[in-house]
Amino acid sequence: MIGVDWGTSNLRAYRLAEDGRVLARREAPRGILTIEPGGFPDALRAVVGDWIAAGETRVLLSGMVGSRQGWQEAPYIPCPAGFDTLVARLIRMPFEDAEALLVPGLTCRDRQGVPEVLRGEETEMLGAAAALGGGEATVCLPGSHSKWARLSGGRVEGFATYMTGEAFSALSGHTILARTLDPRAPHHAGAFARGLARARQGGGLLHHLFGLRAAALFDELGEEEAGSFLSGLLIGHEVAAALEAGVAPPVILVGSSLLTERYARALDAFGVPSREAPPDAAARGLALIGAALR
Amino acid sequence: MIGVDWGTSNLRAYRLAEDGRVLARREAPRGILTIEPGGFPDALRAVVGDWIAAGETRVLLSGMVGSRQGWQEAPYIPCPAGFDTLVARLIRMPFEDAEALLVPGLTCRDRQGVPEVLRGEETEMLGAAAALGGGEATVCLPGSHSKWARLSGGRVEGFATYMTGEAFSALSGHTILARTLDPRAPHHAGAFARGLARARQGGGLLHHLFGLRAAALFDELGEEEAGSFLSGLLIGHEVAAALEAGVAPPVILVGSSLLTERYARALDAFGVPSREAPPDAAARGLALIGAALR
Repeated sequence: MIGVDWGTSNLRAYRLAEDGRVLARREAPRGILTIEPGGFPDALRAVVGDWIAAGETRVLLSGMVGSRQGWQEAPYIPCPAGFDTLVARLIRMPFEDAEALLVPGLTCRDRQGVPEVLRGEETEMLGAAAALGGGEATVCLPGSHSKWARLSGGRVEGFATYMTGEAFSALSGHTILARTLDPRAPHHAGAFARGLARARQGGGLLHHLFGLRAAALFDELGEEEAGSFLSGLLIGHEVAAALEAGVAPPVILVGSSLLTERYARALDAFGVPSREAPPDAAARGLALIGAALR
Repeated sequence: MIGVDWGTSNLRAYRLAEDGRVLARREAPRGILTIEPGGFPDALRAVVGDWIAAGETRVLLSGMVGSRQGWQEAPYIPCPAGFDTLVARLIRMPFEDAEALLVPGLTCRDRQGVPEVLRGEETEMLGAAAALGGGEATVCLPGSHSKWARLSGGRVEGFATYMTGEAFSALSGHTILARTLDPRAPHHAGAFARGLARARQGGGLLHHLFGLRAAALFDELGEEEAGSFLSGLLIGHEVAAALEAGVAPPVILVGSSLLTERYARALDAFGVPSREAPPDAAARGLALIGAALR
C-alpha cells in the first residue's frame, strides 16, 4: 500500500510492504497550503501515480490534509483513541485511481476544559510507541506546535500542545530580538544550554525575552549565540511546563534529529531520561493502520 | 524651559513654567528611527524652534534619543538612582540654539545577574512617584517593553522589563493566531477577562497560546474576541511574574489610559490595588530635573 503524511508545508509518501517495511519514499514541497481548492487528487497523482500504475490499490493519508484548509475536513476523534479507533473512523476520499482513506485527527480537553487538537501526530505517536513496545509512555513531537501525549495500552489518553516553534519564528523575526541575533548562525551548544538554564529561573518568559536583548546590549550575548539562546529559552519553558503537567519517563522523542537532540538535552537538564523513536514513525503508523484493514 | 520625551516612534515636547506647569505641548511622529544620522538638531529645531526664539534657553531631553540609534549614546547609570543622580550625570548635547541636556537611562541586574536597561522611563517613573508623594512604591509603565520598578525614598532601586507589547504584535501578526483574530476588533472586556483567568491557570504561556487557536477551531472564541483574549493572556502572564518577584502595593500605573485600565483590571484580578498616575509624568520628571539645575 501507499502511505502519505500530508502536512502544511510538505508531503511525504511511502510505498509500504505488507510487513510494514518502507520500500520507497518521496518528499515533495506540496504541503496543503500550496494546493489550490480541488487540486488534491492531481497533486496526489503527481507524487504517487506511478506506484498506483505499478499495482498499488490503496492510499492511506494522514495529517493536515484532513483539515479545513485540506482536501476534506475530517471531524476530530476524542481521546482516548488507539489504532482500532482510527481504523473504525477512516474516511473514504473521492479519488478514482485507488482506494484513498483519510486518518482523522484527535481532540481532547486539558484540565481546565480548553480544547486540544492534532492531525497527523496521532499516526506518528502510535507508530513510534508500537515500535518501542507500547505500554505507558510519554511521546513528544517537537515542532512549530510541539505535542506531548500520554499513551497507555496502545491508546493516546490525552495530549497538550506548545506553540514553541512558531513563537520562535515570530519572536526572532518580528521583534527587537531580530536586531540581536544572526538567523544564519549555526547551532551554538553553549548558548542553547544558557537559554535552558535561564528558563529554569524565575521571572517568566516575557521577562526572559527582554533579558536576551539587554544581555546583547552589554555584549554578554553575541549575535551568533542569541538564536540558540532563544531556542534553549523557549524549549526550556516548554519542557518545564510539560513536566509540571506530569510525565511518565522515559520520554519518547519523535521527529528530525535536529530537534529531538535539543529536546533530549533539555530533558536531561531537568533530569528526565528520553529516547529517540526509530525513524519513519508516520510510515510505521500508516502501515499498522493498513495491516488492521486486511 | 523645554522638556522633550524623545522615543523610538514619537517625540513629545513640553514648554514648562518655572513651577513645572505645562504651558504648551506638542507631539510629532518624529521618533528616533525616523531621523537620519546627523539630523537630530534640525529635527529638534523644527519642533521647538519657535519656543527658543520666544526666549527659552534650555532643552532637557529624555528617552531613546540617548541610545545607540539616537542623537548620542549616553552610558546607563546604575541603580539605585534618584533625581540627584540624574542631574549629576546630565550630558551636554551639541546644539547651538540653546543649552541642550540629555537625561541618561538606568541599568540594574536581576536576581540572576541578567542586565536590565531603560531610557526615558526613569524620568516618567520619578515624575509620577513625586506627584504621588514618594516613599515606597511600585511603578508599572505598560507598553512594548513594560517596566516594573521598585522606588524607595525617591530613588529607583531596581526594575524588570517584560516584552509584552512586542510579543503581542509578533504573535498576533506572525503566527497561526493571525488567522484566528480580527486585528480591527474593538476591545472586548469579557474576552480580556477570560485571557486573564487563563494566564492564572497552569500549563505555561506556550501552551496557552495554542489553546487560543484550538478554542477558535471549536467556535469557543470568536474572531472579534481573540485579540482581547490574547491581550489578557499576555498581560496576565506579565502581572503574575511581576507579583511573584515582589511588589509593594499599591502599584502606580503610568501611561495612556488605554493600557493602564487593562493593567488595573489585571492587578485587580490578582487582588492587588493600583492607582493611575496623573498625566504628563515625563513632563513632571523633566520639570523636576530642570528645577534642581537652577
